[in-house]
Amino acid sequence: MYDLIIIGAGPAGLSAAVYGIRAGLDLIVIEQTPMGGGQVIDTSEVDNYLGLPGIGGFELGQKFRQHADALGVVFRSGKVVSIQDGDGEKVVETADGTKYEARALILAGGAQHAKLGVPGEDSFRGQGVSYCATCDGAFFRKRDVAVIGGGDVAVEDAVYLAALCRKVYLIHRRDSLRAAKSLQNKLFSCENVEVVWNSTLQKINGSDLVESITVRQIRENSERELAVEGVFIAVGMKPNTEAYRQTVACDESGYLIAGEDCATNIPGIFAAGDIRTKTLRQIVTAVSDGACAVASAEKYLSFAIE
Amino acid sequence: MYDLIIIGAGPAGLSAAVYGIRAGLDLIVIEQTPMGGGQVIDTSEVDNYLGLPGIGGFELGQKFRQHADALGVVFRSGKVVSIQDGDGEKVVETADGTKYEARALILAGGAQHAKLGVPGEDSFRGQGVSYCATCDGAFFRKRDVAVIGGGDVAVEDAVYLAALCRKVYLIHRRDSLRAAKSLQNKLFSCENVEVVWNSTLQKINGSDLVESITVRQIRENSERELAVEGVFIAVGMKPNTEAYRQTVACDESGYLIAGEDCATNIPGIFAAGDIRTKTLRQIVTAVSDGACAVASAEKYLSFAIE
Repeated sequence: MYDLIIIGAGPAGLSAAVYGIRAGLDLIVIEQTPMGGGQVIDTSEVDNYLGLPGIGGFELGQKFRQHADALGVVFRSGKVVSIQDGDGEKVVETADGTKYEARALILAGGAQHAKLGVPGEDSFRGQGVSYCATCDGAFFRKRDVAVIGGGDVAVEDAVYLAALCRKVYLIHRRDSLRAAKSLQNKLFSCENVEVVWNSTLQKINGSDLVESITVRQIRENSERELAVEGVFIAVGMKPNTEAYRQTVACDESGYLIAGEDCATNIPGIFAAGDIRTKTLRQIVTAVSDGACAVASAEKYLSFAIE
Repeated sequence: MYDLIIIGAGPAGLSAAVYGIRAGLDLIVIEQTPMGGGQVIDTSEVDNYLGLPGIGGFELGQKFRQHADALGVVFRSGKVVSIQDGDGEKVVETADGTKYEARALILAGGAQHAKLGVPGEDSFRGQGVSYCATCDGAFFRKRDVAVIGGGDVAVEDAVYLAALCRKVYLIHRRDSLRAAKSLQNKLFSCENVEVVWNSTLQKINGSDLVESITVRQIRENSERELAVEGVFIAVGMKPNTEAYRQTVACDESGYLIAGEDCATNIPGIFAAGDIRTKTLRQIVTAVSDGACAVASAEKYLSFAIE
């Protein structure tokens, strides 16, 4: 029976492990694959984690891991399939049937960006293909870029990029946007944004880096090529909460409902990082959540004893 | 007229500057003294900012500063004496009468720990004297320490340290604690905590590092020496909000009232880091706030244009 089990070894989980170990808690981290690390390790360059400018995502992920390792954090591998909230104890079960028990849990399994599945999407990731305008927009200053999508995030990304880039194409498969009207008004006021209606991304072209995209006009059934150096794909995000939805309250998109203190509706179960309801999903907000979740877990554990 | 003025150059202000510059905002940072840096630069060692284990506080502060410098952030020196919220513009005035104008403000001036003013308090800072158990407790594992204070934070610190240290003295000047009853119950259940009632800290003794404290029993008018290696002073915190209290809503302790999105009650004025109402004041939560405040400011600026 551990004091605390942290599920997930991305920035939120590793930060929680560092804070938890330093607080003297008996804890383990369960990660889906050995040396997981979360989305950061698939990121080309990170330039907004204060103190470590212009670092490769893999290298940053390694530094995070090494920090936890240096403090003696114990890792177990396994895909968590269920959690149960018993009387004062929580049980975590992994796909191979192993059960772990703890008095408190921090769920830090992150989220994934939905993919389009088009040629070039994987091969150009970090070479022009991005899923985060806030993270990577600054790398495309004064360049031409495209955003794919039509929801709030896609339109926000297009507006964000319009302030940095020379030209922004917003590629949307329908003839109207799903985004909030106020966002649309803002979008249409940006002179350097061109909305490409009724169109889907067919493929991403280039040699080492992205050079252009091929876009298909659905109604006309025609294709054209747009010269862009960046492609921001904003077609949705999926939190990794399948194993928790029976136990912990989620919002309509599947995110675990928790505020800044990371407390969910279940006492002793905390949600940290991209997996929880929050407005800004960034490495540093995930790292911050790890610290806050441990502070909340410590308080819970102190008072649960009596 | 700037897009954004950030007041304060600690972790929150510098992170806001990095996010703001990367978002293409025209901004400056106003700091009270050149190369300020906030509380972190007075910290001996920091071991919980993920990715940079066991780093000196001054060195960490320098890394933060260099990150902002590398992106071309412009700094101005001056003590801000007032802010005014005009029609779509904010005016910041410094002690020398200089006025700066911006469409949005991020207030990131931090907070200060109240000091006791006893001999040894300043000279042993970082050599055994600390103002943050969460930050520094792990450096005193299995050692004897003292906590000074009687409020919620002092008692929480004593409970936190009891899990790590061999013995914890809680030195309190009265015969009862101000802390919440539930916290007191927890405190009294810790076998390795001794409350030293009706007593004040007289001085902190040692050569290079803290070796003992001299404590005065007020009623008996007697002194005794307690052998401790760590002294955690928890007698209150004071946010640096004097210049803002006329303009922005504060809580009873003077913190600017703002949630995770850093929005205050005044549209276009945001509060980031230790200066705002929050439960966990840590370097990483301040850095995270800098990012969140810029995201909120960006949204405000986008829609304020129309």
